[in-house]
Amino acid sequence: MQEVVLGIDIGGTNSKFGFVTHDGELLEEGTCKTKGHPDFKEFLDHLFSHIDEARKKLPEHTLVGVGIGAPNGNYYNGTIEDAPNLEWKGTVPFVDELKKRFKEDIPVVLTNDANAAAIGEMTFGGAKGMKDFIVFTLGTGLGSGIVANGQLIYGHDGFAGEIGHTLVNVFGRTCGCGRKGCLETYVSATGIKRTVYKLLADYLCESELRDVPFNDLSGRMITEAALRGDFIAVQAFEYTGRILGMKLADTVAHFSPEAIFLFGGLVNAGDHLMKPAKFHMEDNMMRNFKGKVKLLVSGLQNKNAAVLGASALIWEKLHKERRAT
Amino acid sequence: MQEVVLGIDIGGTNSKFGFVTHDGELLEEGTCKTKGHPDFKEFLDHLFSHIDEARKKLPEHTLVGVGIGAPNGNYYNGTIEDAPNLEWKGTVPFVDELKKRFKEDIPVVLTNDANAAAIGEMTFGGAKGMKDFIVFTLGTGLGSGIVANGQLIYGHDGFAGEIGHTLVNVFGRTCGCGRKGCLETYVSATGIKRTVYKLLADYLCESELRDVPFNDLSGRMITEAALRGDFIAVQAFEYTGRILGMKLADTVAHFSPEAIFLFGGLVNAGDHLMKPAKFHMEDNMMRNFKGKVKLLVSGLQNKNAAVLGASALIWEKLHKERRAT
Repeated sequence: MQEVVLGIDIGGTNSKFGFVTHDGELLEEGTCKTKGHPDFKEFLDHLFSHIDEARKKLPEHTLVGVGIGAPNGNYYNGTIEDAPNLEWKGTVPFVDELKKRFKEDIPVVLTNDANAAAIGEMTFGGAKGMKDFIVFTLGTGLGSGIVANGQLIYGHDGFAGEIGHTLVNVFGRTCGCGRKGCLETYVSATGIKRTVYKLLADYLCESELRDVPFNDLSGRMITEAALRGDFIAVQAFEYTGRILGMKLADTVAHFSPEAIFLFGGLVNAGDHLMKPAKFHMEDNMMRNFKGKVKLLVSGLQNKNAAVLGASALIWEKLHKERRAT
Repeated sequence: MQEVVLGIDIGGTNSKFGFVTHDGELLEEGTCKTKGHPDFKEFLDHLFSHIDEARKKLPEHTLVGVGIGAPNGNYYNGTIEDAPNLEWKGTVPFVDELKKRFKEDIPVVLTNDANAAAIGEMTFGGAKGMKDFIVFTLGTGLGSGIVANGQLIYGHDGFAGEIGHTLVNVFGRTCGCGRKGCLETYVSATGIKRTVYKLLADYLCESELRDVPFNDLSGRMITEAALRGDFIAVQAFEYTGRILGMKLADTVAHFSPEAIFLFGGLVNAGDHLMKPAKFHMEDNMMRNFKGKVKLLVSGLQNKNAAVLGASALIWEKLHKERRAT
């Protein structure tokens, strides 16, 4: 019987899941709507019925654990707490309730999506064998998962790794978190969209983005425009990369990591993002860090990283336990 | 035979050492000049003769290890690398050379002074039992030692924890590290001195500090002036505390620690520093961290923290090993 882990990624609109082998092969996967299930127990029933259906296709496999990545997921309590993009308000005992639905007594672990991405990078991606690295996920917001001494940093309350909410500019852009000038208001799909609108105001040059209303503009459209050489889109990546690079220099001063991985749709812009990010990281670092830190595209880029990462929460735990015995 | 650890603190002008018991009692201590010994092996002979002298007074004690705190100390290699305030240039194999001078085969461990302070805080100070905390040492510069998951963060190259060199203002004060606007150009004895001169320029009010030339002004004089109610000195602490507090909010976003400890002469200004630091930390934190992080005066404040911390490098190691067996 081959062992598999169920990885679940809870998103604001959809949730994805998949059964993952110890070497990162995704055997069966599925999706179900998160939105439209304001009662979270009812959502769990709904999700579980999809999972159960998929599981029937793997009669020869043993389920050894469940890993979950979720916004505002708390590793210590297995809860989702005040997630702004989910319909469930307050603190939701996700792990306890999900556990009840499995007949097996198997480990069920939950953390936030960026932490899951970091464990995924370590288990299946570019950070294999690394003990000190950081993953930045550039999506609607900016998530970060930090590994030091070979361990994920959860912090005292389980919410460490909010680099997206460190300060770029005290007089800067309003952030969804209620403050001003947070990194994610610049460096994220939403951030670069705001930058495009700023640049469309600053410059008079032609751009294919001048025909797109704010609400329709997506990170993907900006990425594709940049790859086609659109001046505004290219400049927007330059601006984004510069702010990211400057902040990465500060992150390096905290952790002195071996590598920093970038993940997300914007990373598909390639050098448009990576070059200015790398230049400004190096330019802003203390002398003794210069030339030491690798800035890399995630090894899980354009894969089902959220589900792989969620499953890695369990695989990483099992690998450790098995090495110890 | 009672066990003792030798703690050594290498400073730019003087080096201190002491023999410390497992509960943090300092039995014998001594000092010798660091300055004036440009050949570091000759310095080690000099230091060792002082240590040997002090050790003769402890014939009933067993030496179980040596811990060293030094600027730019590299934990992994046991070296001191390009320390700007020391006369020894390049990379100095401190641990290897010191080891040769002891007849016992005992562990000799070296790290930078702020890391030693953090381990000292955990072993003998206010962080006993904590797994996630940070120590800021406000001296000539600003050092930081970071503990997460119960372990010090050394980073990939041994130089993590340089929060003093994160960015406050890209157009800000020139830093000794060659960049501009680093935290330590504001928050340190040197930083507050610069702030006093800025404020003496900004305001016309009386201040006892108007009679002091820049080169004579010390952190201690500013601290004492603030405690006497001098307007400029009080405002200088307010300014320093505000910048520190804002940066602490970013540090919390990275690590979500249980507590942050402040250590150093400036901390003797009490609420003049702690109040604005706490206010601006809370004011700048994301909602989910608010009210959770303790900002505390170091439990080793006004003790021989550098020597205690250096010895704690060994005690912490021994405690762990003994717990494991």
